[in-house]
Amino acid sequence: MATVPLISDDAASAEVLAVFDDIRTTRDTDFINNFWRALANDPVLLAATWDRLKVAMGPGTLDPLVKEMIYIAVSTANGCEYCVHSHTAAASAKGMTSDQHGELLSVIGMAMQTNGLVTGLQVPVDDAFRKVHT
Amino acid sequence: MATVPLISDDAASAEVLAVFDDIRTTRDTDFINNFWRALANDPVLLAATWDRLKVAMGPGTLDPLVKEMIYIAVSTANGCEYCVHSHTAAASAKGMTSDQHGELLSVIGMAMQTNGLVTGLQVPVDDAFRKVHT
Amino acid sequence: MATVPLISDDAASAEVLAVFDDIRTTRDTDFINNFWRALANDPVLLAATWDRLKVAMGPGTLDPLVKEMIYIAVSTANGCEYCVHSHTAAASAKGMTSDQHGELLSVIGMAMQTNGLVTGLQVPVDDAFRKVHT
Amino acid sequence: MATVPLISDDAASAEVLAVFDDIRTTRDTDFINNFWRALANDPVLLAATWDRLKVAMGPGTLDPLVKEMIYIAVSTANGCEYCVHSHTAAASAKGMTSDQHGELLSVIGMAMQTNGLVTGLQVPVDDAFRKVHT
Amino acid sequence: MATVPLISDDAASAEVLAVFDDIRTTRDTDFINNFWRALANDPVLLAATWDRLKVAMGPGTLDPLVKEMIYIAVSTANGCEYCVHSHTAAASAKGMTSDQHGELLSVIGMAMQTNGLVTGLQVPVDDAFRKVHT
Amino acid sequence: MATVPLISDDAASAEVLAVFDDIRTTRDTDFINNFWRALANDPVLLAATWDRLKVAMGPGTLDPLVKEMIYIAVSTANGCEYCVHSHTAAASAKGMTSDQHGELLSVIGMAMQTNGLVTGLQVPVDDAFRKVHT
Repeated sequence: MATVPLISDDAASAEVLAVFDDIRTTRDTDFINNFWRALANDPVLLAATWDRLKVAMGPGTLDPLVKEMIYIAVSTANGCEYCVHSHTAAASAKGMTSDQHGELLSVIGMAMQTNGLVTGLQVPVDDAFRKVHT
Repeated sequence: MATVPLISDDAASAEVLAVFDDIRTTRDTDFINNFWRALANDPVLLAATWDRLKVAMGPGTLDPLVKEMIYIAVSTANGCEYCVHSHTAAASAKGMTSDQHGELLSVIGMAMQTNGLVTGLQVPVDDAFRKVHT
Repeated sequence: MATVPLISDDAASAEVLAVFDDIRTTRDTDFINNFWRALANDPVLLAATWDRLKVAMGPGTLDPLVKEMIYIAVSTANGCEYCVHSHTAAASAKGMTSDQHGELLSVIGMAMQTNGLVTGLQVPVDDAFRKVHT
Repeated sequence: MATVPLISDDAASAEVLAVFDDIRTTRDTDFINNFWRALANDPVLLAATWDRLKVAMGPGTLDPLVKEMIYIAVSTANGCEYCVHSHTAAASAKGMTSDQHGELLSVIGMAMQTNGLVTGLQVPVDDAFRKVHT
Repeated sequence: MATVPLISDDAASAEVLAVFDDIRTTRDTDFINNFWRALANDPVLLAATWDRLKVAMGPGTLDPLVKEMIYIAVSTANGCEYCVHSHTAAASAKGMTSDQHGELLSVIGMAMQTNGLVTGLQVPVDDAFRKVHT
Repeated sequence: MATVPLISDDAASAEVLAVFDDIRTTRDTDFINNFWRALANDPVLLAATWDRLKVAMGPGTLDPLVKEMIYIAVSTANGCEYCVHSHTAAASAKGMTSDQHGELLSVIGMAMQTNGLVTGLQVPVDDAFRKVHT
């Protein structure tokens, strides 16, 4: 169903297994989801993507759950089915409540709507907004 | 520059002014940004959009700053220049630090990248993700 | 398969059932499609979305079938599978002929193509278009 | 500002001028907007695009104004500034009233919002919708 | 599953069969993929689309495999599942290696990421880029 | 105009200057375009993005000009003005001819159009395409 084979542990090279191991350790689970098994067809791309994801989604100034919600927001706007499923599952695992999920969806829906209204109206950016960073 | 005239206070109907007043009171500012002045060409749409936005972005289970960041995420994925400017200004006004802004952009960029990889690979959704809500 | 449970009538709260009843009355059918059953996990979002949809898609200056075709156009550009299916069904129910469907798709395809050409060429907006609303 | 030069009448080849002439005759105006002047760098693409546009936007089962509104809907969802401006001007020239414009924007906004909600919820397509064409 | 019936050879009009024949001859195969069978509900749109596709994807200054990769890139950014599958199959048939596929995906992913970063940052276009075509 | 300050060489930290230096050396130019000066507000994101871009756009199995064209294709579909300008300039610098540019735009336009038609028709993926990688 994917455009590439999904690489099982048995079929994985040492280079790929090293990334799988790091995913397992970092996430404290044995489960490797299909995204990584598909990416594993290109070990360099796999390693680069994982290394960067680990940093971007790792400890920082934003709460891990907030990061998952931002990820869901982008994935929804881009219409990525897999990404919505995987990051909604991740957000749930990190404690997202049903109320928070509903509120996340409310904000996404509102943003989608006003994005459309703004573009249809071709609203010029207010000077007040442009002055913020000068 | 907009596809409609921007409605000044002087040109506004009583119906429109009532919404402008509520925006001013709710936000504790005299400033009405161009989005609302453009929307004001359709008083029903103006009132409906503001009424809903006030609730969606108002008090709830998610932090107001988190909501602004979700808004920026959607607006960025949709390529809405005005929306990125206005909600980045709003997030800054609600205390978003430069570090948080950078981290927000990192997550958005990561999500955009993996959205593309997932779609190009046509990764099938893992059963584990589908089981979450059944 | 959804990221939330679909709420059956039996599982619905009084608040949710009131919206379902209004949908049934407005549309003169007993059928509640999955969108509303998924949204019903957040009764406030359900009611707000239905209330607004009822107005936006209700009587006005545009023909109801035209509104469905506009809805299909947006949903197609956004790649929303469910929305294309549901609004194509709604348009058919409102009398869209096969010829009209073909013509709708022709215009959508043409718009998609020229959107891409314009963006790739970065065509500057003609003064003649900007002058329309000043 | 464009990524290619805009071809003036003086700089146009006979092949390009023939298309410009047909645009002028078909639209009953001397005005050639920038899109065609940019496309004219590739005479084959220019002719193919115009020939197809003339048919798709020409007489058929849908009203010319409805076609412009569908064009605006797609262009808005795709965030194409030039296209929103040019087709809003065209719709106005074809008689779109301010009320119709507001209603068009209401439907676009509603569609954008529910596209986002549907995608975030990953709503499964109802069997009733799938049965339409089998 | 489609929003229209898929037209079999038996159900096809002479006009549609003529296009199918040309597809078969041009591609040197008996196989007509579902896209054309769905489009065949509108014979004019079918013929116009095929005639244009044949030229755009036919001999020119760009390698046929490069054209397929560009097609995959656009289809991925637009989230078109069918298009990603069909053009990845076409690219494979034209000799795309696994390494080239990985590299294509790397570039797509990188472009998606920086598209998001640029939009989130609202980076102004450098004068050096604007000067290219004046 | 950006949502962040553009970091000049004088304002850059040692960490940022090291990336700027590597960009200058790799590209054999003194010019640092605005994207990097905006990203420089987050030195970690700057370094990670440049390090990855250098690899993805560097030597491999695809021609450097082909990579730029793929980048333009994605950026066009995503409506990223800055990215279209910067990568069209880069493609020109790498030798893209006017004919190749026209052909690139033809393919992008064709893909956009058929993406829309496929989505509007909800064409089911042919088994023949799915069999490719099993």
